[in-house]
Amino acid sequence: MPNKIVTFGEIMLRLTPPNYLRFVQADSFDVTYGGGEANVAVSLANYGEDAYFVTKVPDNPIGQSAINHLRRYGVHTDYVVKGGERLGIYFNEIGASQRPSLVVYDRSHSAIAESSPSDFNWEKILAGAKWFHFTGITPALGDNTAQACLDAVKTAKNLGVTVSCDLNYRKKLWSTEKAGKVMTGLMEYVDVAIGNEEDAEKVFNIKAGTSDVTKGELSEEGYKDVARQLQEKFSLKGVAITLRESFSAFDNGWSALYYDGKEYYKSRRYQIHIVDRVGGGDSFGGGLIYALCNGYAPQDAVEFAVAASCLKHSIVGDFNHVTLKEVQTLAKGDASGRVQR
Amino acid sequence: MPNKIVTFGEIMLRLTPPNYLRFVQADSFDVTYGGGEANVAVSLANYGEDAYFVTKVPDNPIGQSAINHLRRYGVHTDYVVKGGERLGIYFNEIGASQRPSLVVYDRSHSAIAESSPSDFNWEKILAGAKWFHFTGITPALGDNTAQACLDAVKTAKNLGVTVSCDLNYRKKLWSTEKAGKVMTGLMEYVDVAIGNEEDAEKVFNIKAGTSDVTKGELSEEGYKDVARQLQEKFSLKGVAITLRESFSAFDNGWSALYYDGKEYYKSRRYQIHIVDRVGGGDSFGGGLIYALCNGYAPQDAVEFAVAASCLKHSIVGDFNHVTLKEVQTLAKGDASGRVQR
Amino acid sequence: MPNKIVTFGEIMLRLTPPNYLRFVQADSFDVTYGGGEANVAVSLANYGEDAYFVTKVPDNPIGQSAINHLRRYGVHTDYVVKGGERLGIYFNEIGASQRPSLVVYDRSHSAIAESSPSDFNWEKILAGAKWFHFTGITPALGDNTAQACLDAVKTAKNLGVTVSCDLNYRKKLWSTEKAGKVMTGLMEYVDVAIGNEEDAEKVFNIKAGTSDVTKGELSEEGYKDVARQLQEKFSLKGVAITLRESFSAFDNGWSALYYDGKEYYKSRRYQIHIVDRVGGGDSFGGGLIYALCNGYAPQDAVEFAVAASCLKHSIVGDFNHVTLKEVQTLAKGDASGRVQR
Amino acid sequence: MPNKIVTFGEIMLRLTPPNYLRFVQADSFDVTYGGGEANVAVSLANYGEDAYFVTKVPDNPIGQSAINHLRRYGVHTDYVVKGGERLGIYFNEIGASQRPSLVVYDRSHSAIAESSPSDFNWEKILAGAKWFHFTGITPALGDNTAQACLDAVKTAKNLGVTVSCDLNYRKKLWSTEKAGKVMTGLMEYVDVAIGNEEDAEKVFNIKAGTSDVTKGELSEEGYKDVARQLQEKFSLKGVAITLRESFSAFDNGWSALYYDGKEYYKSRRYQIHIVDRVGGGDSFGGGLIYALCNGYAPQDAVEFAVAASCLKHSIVGDFNHVTLKEVQTLAKGDASGRVQR
Amino acid sequence: MPNKIVTFGEIMLRLTPPNYLRFVQADSFDVTYGGGEANVAVSLANYGEDAYFVTKVPDNPIGQSAINHLRRYGVHTDYVVKGGERLGIYFNEIGASQRPSLVVYDRSHSAIAESSPSDFNWEKILAGAKWFHFTGITPALGDNTAQACLDAVKTAKNLGVTVSCDLNYRKKLWSTEKAGKVMTGLMEYVDVAIGNEEDAEKVFNIKAGTSDVTKGELSEEGYKDVARQLQEKFSLKGVAITLRESFSAFDNGWSALYYDGKEYYKSRRYQIHIVDRVGGGDSFGGGLIYALCNGYAPQDAVEFAVAASCLKHSIVGDFNHVTLKEVQTLAKGDASGRVQR
Amino acid sequence: MPNKIVTFGEIMLRLTPPNYLRFVQADSFDVTYGGGEANVAVSLANYGEDAYFVTKVPDNPIGQSAINHLRRYGVHTDYVVKGGERLGIYFNEIGASQRPSLVVYDRSHSAIAESSPSDFNWEKILAGAKWFHFTGITPALGDNTAQACLDAVKTAKNLGVTVSCDLNYRKKLWSTEKAGKVMTGLMEYVDVAIGNEEDAEKVFNIKAGTSDVTKGELSEEGYKDVARQLQEKFSLKGVAITLRESFSAFDNGWSALYYDGKEYYKSRRYQIHIVDRVGGGDSFGGGLIYALCNGYAPQDAVEFAVAASCLKHSIVGDFNHVTLKEVQTLAKGDASGRVQR
Repeated sequence: MPNKIVTFGEIMLRLTPPNYLRFVQADSFDVTYGGGEANVAVSLANYGEDAYFVTKVPDNPIGQSAINHLRRYGVHTDYVVKGGERLGIYFNEIGASQRPSLVVYDRSHSAIAESSPSDFNWEKILAGAKWFHFTGITPALGDNTAQACLDAVKTAKNLGVTVSCDLNYRKKLWSTEKAGKVMTGLMEYVDVAIGNEEDAEKVFNIKAGTSDVTKGELSEEGYKDVARQLQEKFSLKGVAITLRESFSAFDNGWSALYYDGKEYYKSRRYQIHIVDRVGGGDSFGGGLIYALCNGYAPQDAVEFAVAASCLKHSIVGDFNHVTLKEVQTLAKGDASGRVQR
Repeated sequence: MPNKIVTFGEIMLRLTPPNYLRFVQADSFDVTYGGGEANVAVSLANYGEDAYFVTKVPDNPIGQSAINHLRRYGVHTDYVVKGGERLGIYFNEIGASQRPSLVVYDRSHSAIAESSPSDFNWEKILAGAKWFHFTGITPALGDNTAQACLDAVKTAKNLGVTVSCDLNYRKKLWSTEKAGKVMTGLMEYVDVAIGNEEDAEKVFNIKAGTSDVTKGELSEEGYKDVARQLQEKFSLKGVAITLRESFSAFDNGWSALYYDGKEYYKSRRYQIHIVDRVGGGDSFGGGLIYALCNGYAPQDAVEFAVAASCLKHSIVGDFNHVTLKEVQTLAKGDASGRVQR
Repeated sequence: MPNKIVTFGEIMLRLTPPNYLRFVQADSFDVTYGGGEANVAVSLANYGEDAYFVTKVPDNPIGQSAINHLRRYGVHTDYVVKGGERLGIYFNEIGASQRPSLVVYDRSHSAIAESSPSDFNWEKILAGAKWFHFTGITPALGDNTAQACLDAVKTAKNLGVTVSCDLNYRKKLWSTEKAGKVMTGLMEYVDVAIGNEEDAEKVFNIKAGTSDVTKGELSEEGYKDVARQLQEKFSLKGVAITLRESFSAFDNGWSALYYDGKEYYKSRRYQIHIVDRVGGGDSFGGGLIYALCNGYAPQDAVEFAVAASCLKHSIVGDFNHVTLKEVQTLAKGDASGRVQR
Repeated sequence: MPNKIVTFGEIMLRLTPPNYLRFVQADSFDVTYGGGEANVAVSLANYGEDAYFVTKVPDNPIGQSAINHLRRYGVHTDYVVKGGERLGIYFNEIGASQRPSLVVYDRSHSAIAESSPSDFNWEKILAGAKWFHFTGITPALGDNTAQACLDAVKTAKNLGVTVSCDLNYRKKLWSTEKAGKVMTGLMEYVDVAIGNEEDAEKVFNIKAGTSDVTKGELSEEGYKDVARQLQEKFSLKGVAITLRESFSAFDNGWSALYYDGKEYYKSRRYQIHIVDRVGGGDSFGGGLIYALCNGYAPQDAVEFAVAASCLKHSIVGDFNHVTLKEVQTLAKGDASGRVQR
Repeated sequence: MPNKIVTFGEIMLRLTPPNYLRFVQADSFDVTYGGGEANVAVSLANYGEDAYFVTKVPDNPIGQSAINHLRRYGVHTDYVVKGGERLGIYFNEIGASQRPSLVVYDRSHSAIAESSPSDFNWEKILAGAKWFHFTGITPALGDNTAQACLDAVKTAKNLGVTVSCDLNYRKKLWSTEKAGKVMTGLMEYVDVAIGNEEDAEKVFNIKAGTSDVTKGELSEEGYKDVARQLQEKFSLKGVAITLRESFSAFDNGWSALYYDGKEYYKSRRYQIHIVDRVGGGDSFGGGLIYALCNGYAPQDAVEFAVAASCLKHSIVGDFNHVTLKEVQTLAKGDASGRVQR
Repeated sequence: MPNKIVTFGEIMLRLTPPNYLRFVQADSFDVTYGGGEANVAVSLANYGEDAYFVTKVPDNPIGQSAINHLRRYGVHTDYVVKGGERLGIYFNEIGASQRPSLVVYDRSHSAIAESSPSDFNWEKILAGAKWFHFTGITPALGDNTAQACLDAVKTAKNLGVTVSCDLNYRKKLWSTEKAGKVMTGLMEYVDVAIGNEEDAEKVFNIKAGTSDVTKGELSEEGYKDVARQLQEKFSLKGVAITLRESFSAFDNGWSALYYDGKEYYKSRRYQIHIVDRVGGGDSFGGGLIYALCNGYAPQDAVEFAVAASCLKHSIVGDFNHVTLKEVQTLAKGDASGRVQR
């Protein structure tokens, strides 16, 4: 029996030069659609949940294509509102070796960024839901979407719906001061938080040790400390911290930590050769929500979430096109990549 | 000895589904760049002129790619200003048979639309120029670009630079009232106007007979009347009217009329099987400017311009990738399409 | 308020060499999915109806992709059964000029062909439905699917659901004798029949005049006679006959006739330059069902259906990716193919 | 029982911009291989004959790819010699509507052009053969290939092998004077000649009426006269004249005339919408040789050859990928292009 | 002087999503053809042998394309039988990092699986041959192909043709019991066997030590033991065991062991970054047969075979497109990958 | 204020099979243009310099496309001469893992190779220039280009233009004896030399220690010795030696050494996963010239040049599409490849 899970945010048109071409070389762009909360919804739909994505898209063929992309992968789009000026776009150049991936955002004035809080009837949307998820990107789009988020989490609280939030700080969208203020207001209603060291510091000024992310060094103790501070500050049921070690655009270490207020649960660490890095964090969120929704023990939950996001790095596009069984197989330890016939 | 010719306007990223796919089917977009005045500049560069395109693009890889696209085809970009938020985009779905082509504009808030008139130093830009060209799209982008156009044409007049304008009315950009008012102010400085029946009526309320463009019927007398009214109203040196007969998205009739205030010059009529329709009018403008700049007799000028734009319909993208010799061969009468070895 | 409309049949993987290549030249195949009744369902979803497609697909990624393709375009797949050995495949080579399109079927042993009648709970599937549609292909797949069709139409009759059938005779699937016998049993429950001259003759031995379809000659009187005979034989509420004139793989004439037992309604005739011919008849069916479901007068219904299917010929793949508004615009007479900005 | 048929000439790498792009736009080229006599060999292999193509290609992967391309389509490459500097290349831009196709040759210094007559052991190559074919291109490559042709046709004569020659005058390869001299020497050994009006005039100064090929006008009487003059001058068993009417790069009329020294046999005329024009004449040659080798009556032979070459215009690349049955079906009169299921 | 070498088995259409896409994302499939014994034949043709592949394919364009693919790469197809229902298909999704490659088989009811032993005249096919090769897949297709294999190996034995067999156990085709029984009957006629630890255990219940292939651990002693048991059980002239260490879908270790009944010959070990994993084992078989056919010493033979198959992992498709010289260069020790100019 | 920098040499059409295909598999080639000195010019244009590339290309669309490719990326083509027979071509197969990349040259008889020294007016070309660069490839094309190089460097010396030369020995173009003689004559005018161990030995018989480049072993001391010998022999202001360690076609170590006649400056070493190896050395040259032209200290210069060329290995095509800022970021130490948003 699938759970109704609702996510709320922006879905953008993603335009990517093929075959490692740089923007200036490209005569075509590969087209997909994605965004933090949409990516989480697709993960959940893939695992068999009734995932609903809430957003606003323009009433034109580009907006329709975004809806179709969600439907294709099983996400319910019943609560998507149509209207507004344009669909946000992001241009994504895939990096290689020492050349980093580039993201050029062209998301201002999007339908969701300029939506009204009244566009969304949260009583109706969250009726019967088990979980509600958003990221720090949605309230960063504007005061109106921040208000819509607040409406949503308050309604969720009233209806007994669990709320999760991926902090996801984006410096192009707002200042740390603004982020801190708005997010603090929202965190009151959040049960489970997901973030990384940078998010916690930028948004809430929570600092850990001295790890320098550009050098691929990670301090496990530091991360535990960040998780603990977050949990205490907002009385969270759980905090997950993802730990990315960046060696190059191709090679990353990837693991995570989960803290339930009592114990720390450290996942296995994967050495990943990356195909597509975008959506890696969202696939972790999707995996974690699935696991917690379905009663996984904390260690199993963080292993499932990390295995899911490990696989995401091998998949083109924002969405994590994996089945429940594929994630479970990897989480159980088969990372050999042997051909499945 | 090439002439310095300056055009001013917007260049947009054009995204087109390949192989007659509809937007909702596309998993990739073909990428080109184009816009009314940029297209004219490319035509002129192809014929050997020193064509300069003036615009503003964002200082990011997408803006750079637009510049590169112009440079690739020989247009000088020395006066392109960098800055602003974004490059305008238009999504272009290629039609087929009874299914029309679709254009979805996403051009608001572009760098050029939000540029300041002070971004452009017209004294410097037009120094030594022989011709200046703009279309009705540029002043329609905003009051600031309308002002920049006015600055440009006044400077041109002072410097003895010939000015041409393609009326190009776009209903999504402004009302007929606003268009009429702004364009009337600009036409005072224009020497040569290009348009079609719809433009003249929408912008200046100049009406001809009863031709219904959706039925592919054209009244030659009506067009002559429109040309004469335009010429008289603005004391123009020349007026060109393009005559498109739309039978389907694949099949069009194409010809033009030129009126120099004394005589009417009617071109040959081409029966075209269309590959890419966009930029057809601009390639006419580019051909006409070249011909008039280089002393062609009126009949030869309109034949050259129509042959150039006939060929454009066989070429993918906004730009008219043809050589002077290719246009001349067609204008002289060889439309057989025999293999050139 | 959308109508629930149910169609039942096979959806196949369609593999098509790109760019007019022949099979022996192809190093890649374009991938879509389609089949007579699935195509009808997509048309109806595009027009805003609640379209349900019923079939059986294998529980593997190829079957899942077929489901995703339907979902992408808005078709409900709640009643799709998973299991069986394989998804049927058809290889489709696009013809050009005097070279005909080729279809190589590889559909034997498909999940739907080897399904059991008990796989489908028609009481549940048809609950609340307004219309049920199938084609002559489904009962031709095997005795089991013929039985499932019979179950479906009987249930439909009990529930007051209108039933339509596109005769669609396929000589590779069954003999004319078998077809005649099985289809006669099913027609008892059918309200609206769709077919062409060949179908009527092959399945029911109903003959009209002397038109030779390979020569592109059509006898209007003959078709009227066929429609009348069909209507009388099965006491139908309506009979639609599509009239294709094949001049070449690129050029076809296309029109239709509708007979409601009293009057004949002849549609406009379109001269089509074909992009993709497959699904042309299905898109007529989808248009006709929509029109009849929504109370169109007979003449309007046949015009709507023919305009819809005219547009289909300009669209790649089996599915007719058009909006209600696009069909209405063409049906009202604008076939000029002018760019829609 | 297949016939051994030998053709001799150059095979080139053909590089074609995709999707109607012009050379200056292309970021990729479609790759095929072709050449007059190689194209004829592929036609014959497709019809079931034992076709051998004789040439010289460089001993590198590009030369090997040319061999593989021939083998793929059933041509025997046993007598292909390896060595020399390079494979000839031709760049082929596909025209559209009024824009002609362009061919840019880069064939100088190719392995075959710089081969030695001693590279080819004609006694061995022609042993058991029924037919030998070459075109006017091969002797035009150089004095050495002209000598190799002479060796070949003399050996053929000695061995009782029928010889055919497609005149195929190429002005970039030699002067009319040189062509006339060399070809006259070779024609002594030729049994069947193929050409068009231009060939006959350029090579042998044989003129017909006043048809202007750039205007698509053809004088049937003129062509008959050319055929008769050719037949008489070289005591030929048969002369075929192809009649192309060029209306545009997309639309051609296509037919042919065969003269056996007694009667004229005029084929049906096809109105073709062109996909790929190159190899059209060669496919006529392949069809004619097949028909004459297999005892077709003259009228049937010319109908078969014209139907074959009509189909070629619908096929991408130089080679005519059609089966014997497909040609026969069209030759018998079904040009409707109806889907073959 | 090339050796005649015959292989017998199935060739399938292989459909692969491009660019690491998953099946559910793909809108096109790359098309190649392959199968265990066909792959071996191509390897041998590449090294200059007269390789014949024996199979049955349907008499349609898909079957013809499979033949053409073999011919393109130099394999003789004289003994390919035409007929039957369909060509087997396999869908192959390329894995990446921790995501394994997937193979979805759709091979039931193929022409070869439903062929009759009488389709193959082994006396004629094997006349003059030096070597016959098959894999455990062919007898697994059905009792009829098992019988055809038995006919073939018996005839080979009579004619003094050396026989090799790659055990290649496929659990989707038959049970271990059936495999054991059938293969034991065939092994009586086999001279050289190729396998891996899993094959030996699944087919003949021959077990080695405790290596767990999903963990990438290999016990050299265990493999020697397997080789020895196989050799003794069937009195083989030679046994080759390939040793794959799977670290991820991208990274594998690759080496092999050869046992001639007296000594063990261990190859160099390659650390491979994989482009396309399928056909890796077959390319080893092709290399080994070539080496043994041409009198290589055992150590040289296993080095050649491993170098050949190492290169295969860098090549797209089932076939190993390498030259004799390329394999020899790697076998001699240059694995630096420096550009060859 | 940009510097005028002039480079002189050949630009070739580069044809590359896509997606790691081998030549024999390819049905399309990716098209770019490149050559040693053209690649350097593009690097310099990317860093903001006024880069001029001097060459001769044929007056046809292929030559024009080469010019357009240079213009697209900001290189001035004012001094490109048009004429001659053909554009040189090189076929480039991308290697993978243990399979090396292949380059098949087809550059003989190119316009530049057959140009006349009088085609180039060096007084005019070098007027106002700060730097002139060529490689050992240009004089190797023929005695005429060697003479043109001599004319150029003599003129440069007279005008006070700094001269750099990348030794770049190509064994297919000339013998070591010829190279030694010609290059010695040119080196008299050179200020800065770039090379690797192989170049120094092949051209000037300058040998270092025993490093075997095919084994990826490099002796730092040996390279220092080579640099010193080169500097002394030709009284150079600076010598740069690039140090490539080839582990496979995918994995290389990359670093460099700079010697200014007094001190040795060793760069950081990068472990690169290669996307496209061609142009790696040229991008080092472009980086070094930029740094030296702009007053970088020697250590900074070699770090900038190595960082630039490290990035080149991640970019498709010959040209190094990176910005000044991107190179500086890597040179300063951020090689983490983290996404830049």
